Order: sequence, then structure tokens, then C-alpha cells
Amino acid sequence: MISKQQQKYVQSLHNKKYRQEYGEFIVEGQKNILELVSSEYEIIEIFCSSAFEKILLQSLKKLPLHVGSEEQIQAISTQKNQTAGVAVVKIPVFDSKPKNQPLNLILDGIKDPGNLGTIIRLADWYGLKQIFCSADTVECYNPKVIAATMGSFSRIECHYVDLREYLKKVSKYTYGAYLGGTNIHELRLRKEINLVIGSESHGIRNEILPFISEKITIPGFGNAESLNAAVATGIILDNFSRFYN
Amino acid sequence: MISKQQQKYVQSLHNKKYRQEYGEFIVEGQKNILELVSSEYEIIEIFCSSAFEKILLQSLKKLPLHVGSEEQIQAISTQKNQTAGVAVVKIPVFDSKPKNQPLNLILDGIKDPGNLGTIIRLADWYGLKQIFCSADTVECYNPKVIAATMGSFSRIECHYVDLREYLKKVSKYTYGAYLGGTNIHELRLRKEINLVIGSESHGIRNEILPFISEKITIPGFGNAESLNAAVATGIILDNFSRFYN
Repeated sequence: MISKQQQKYVQSLHNKKYRQEYGEFIVEGQKNILELVSSEYEIIEIFCSSAFEKILLQSLKKLPLHVGSEEQIQAISTQKNQTAGVAVVKIPVFDSKPKNQPLNLILDGIKDPGNLGTIIRLADWYGLKQIFCSADTVECYNPKVIAATMGSFSRIECHYVDLREYLKKVSKYTYGAYLGGTNIHELRLRKEINLVIGSESHGIRNEILPFISEKITIPGFGNAESLNAAVATGIILDNFSRFYN
Repeated sequence: MISKQQQKYVQSLHNKKYRQEYGEFIVEGQKNILELVSSEYEIIEIFCSSAFEKILLQSLKKLPLHVGSEEQIQAISTQKNQTAGVAVVKIPVFDSKPKNQPLNLILDGIKDPGNLGTIIRLADWYGLKQIFCSADTVECYNPKVIAATMGSFSRIECHYVDLREYLKKVSKYTYGAYLGGTNIHELRLRKEINLVIGSESHGIRNEILPFISEKITIPGFGNAESLNAAVATGIILDNFSRFYN
């Protein structure tokens, strides 16, 4: 049973305003909730179908479960045809000190939630632990971001920073994804680097340019003007992984 | 001025059923319409704002323009905050004979419109001319697909085929994207190949497996189980482009 009050409460977390006010966010669907359950995140409650409850009860953790009808789950979910479950989770506080990783991924103004989620999934695929985002990058607790991470949200820390201040402090060799830079197939890669990816419509903003050590580009052979930001991030990370792993 | 009847007509093309019935689709927004105007597609009419009309009038073509208010454009658009224009376009009939290209991209059941659009944009980036899709792949004239192509829809032909029949006829060496196949960084690439990409949730379906000459995999180094289908396509095409171009 999910009460009207509980329903209203979970629905309020669909909005950024209330996520920030309550310091909580939601995780939806079987795949993402199972990844959540095996993570360190603090789960406040999980609203689930009776079928999904059976799966969750196999977890070793004691979970605060509330079983609801499929209609009730649908009502508190942001996704169409999602009747497995919705978890309410505490927004964690991370130590923003850069972790020791050979590559620092930095996002300058990514706006599309699907792109940020896909980039978080990519970061996880390539073994990163954290991402640094400009303050105007889309919020990583947006339900569409969480959905697109396919569980990787639970392993990647997103830090929102003043990029200029951050780059002033972290004095690494910094690659920036541009059109017309060094062909990534011909790079002589440095160790311990930053990689900056710009926004979908404007690329890396001008005020970041002084911090870019080298512009890099994915070679193209057709007529498309550019690539999707998440796809470009994936292609560059794959090229870098030839050296780092 | 956009009449109520015109509005209803364009709105009907938001739905696949009417796109198929009328043999027409819509192209929305400045970037995509400008790419359309410089393509061979048959434009039936363009509904646009007066600001966008000024830009369109610079085209060398005689265009069937109707100027409407921003509210009227918004009413016939599928996109939020899109007030530049909507074009009605004839669905073209392509010769489905495979063109002479070193790599044949084949999609098996891609369901997400954003992914198909991004893959079409990628195909264009890598100089392909056509894509072959299983019959259950999302329709390429879906407005979300067209939007995600960022204009590349006008240069890439999408053919919907019975994949088994198609693969029986096209007897090329066929790579399939799987988990646990040959590392794409260590491939000895063949010339004249097929590349099959499976669906987001199920990968390549079992009945296609007999046609796969070699399974290939993007090396991962973290904990994500898989990559987004469009990102994976991009990374594989980038690796192949080292050999083909």
C-alpha cells in the first residue's frame, strides 16, 4: 500500500527544487534499483511491486520496502510503463578532492540528461571514479540522468565546480574536444591528464580556452558537422584507453 | 497564417500511422530544415516564423513557405520551445540495392529514437550512405529520430529489411557487437564487411547469430555492464575508420 501522502512526497522528488530542499532523489526500475541496493548509498525507502519485492528480499540488506500496485508504482514514477519500483535515496556528500586517476573527465555545460547519464555510464566502463562538471551542467540526480546511467550512477561521483577555479588548481596537461584539433588517432598521449568535453550546442566556452593545452578532434570522413557529445566522449575515452590500460 | 486545417494536418504527421498513410513526415527546427532545403528531398510545405522566413528566402530554391506566429509554430511542433519552423516532406523511395561502401552498417532492433538518430549522424560522420535496419527497428521518420540526426537524415538512406534474408544475400564477412568477443583494439580487419549492432536491451537476436563471422567487443576497464548502443556504434566505427580511410 502506498498512501496519498507517500505518493505526493515521491512525486515532489521528480522536481529539482524539492530534491535540493529534501536532499533526496529517486531511482527507478529494476536494473537501477538492484545496482543501488548493492551500493553504499543510503536508501530511505523503496516502493515496489510484489514481484520485485521477492527479488529485493534476496538481498542481504534489510531494506525499507513498501509494496504497491502496478498503478501506484506507475503514479510515482517519471517513466512510462515502469511498474517495478521507485526508491527514495539520500543525496550523498562526496569529498571533492580529485582521486588518483590517470584521466580526469571534465564536462563544460552538458545540458541533455540522456547525454550526462550516458557519459556517467562511459566513465564507469572506463574505470573512472569521478567526473567534474561546470555549475550549469544538468543536475546528476535528474531522473532521466539516473535512468540513462543504467546503474553506473552508484559508482561515479559527480562534482559540480567553478571550472575556471578548478582548472587553476589542477595543473595537468589538459585536452579539449574541438573541431579542427589534433587527430586523436595520431596523439602522443601524456600521462595524468584532464579531458574537457563541451556542451552540445556551444562546445567548450571561451573562458576555458586558456586552460586547454591541446585541442583534439575525432577524424570524420563524411558530411556531418559534429558528433553527439556522449558519443564523442566515448570515442575519445576508447582512444585514450589504448594507452592507459 | 496557419489555418486550423493545416495545423491539424501537420499534427497528424506526429503519428506514425498518418506518416505511413500520407507518405509524408515532418522536419523541425532551423538546423534540420536548412539541411533539408539543401538536399534532394521533396518539400511539400514549410511553416515558419517570419524571422526564419528571411533566412529561408536566401535559399536558391523556390520554397512553399507559410509564415505563422510563434504560437502557431509551437502548436504544430513536437518539440518544446521550437518556434522556428516545421517542414512537411515527402517520404522518398530509395533503391535498396547496397551501395558500394567498405562497411555496411546493420541495426537489429534499435528501439530508442535518440539512439537511431545518433547512429544516423554517426554514419554520416564516417562517410556511409545507407543503413540496413531490421523491420522492428524504430521508424527513421519518427520526429525524435529526425531531430537527433542533426541534419544527417538528409544524407543517409535507411532501409528496413528482413535481416535474415538480407544477410543470406549479402555474403560479406560479418562482425557483430557482443560482450566477450574479440577486442576491437586487436582486430585484424577485413575489407568489405558488415557490422551488426543489436538492440539496447537484448543485443543481436539469436536467429542472426549464424550469420555472424566474428564477435567483437569494446574493451572495458570498470564496472558498467554494457555501453549505450549509439556510443558503442561510434566507438566501433572510429576503430574501423583507422583501417578504411
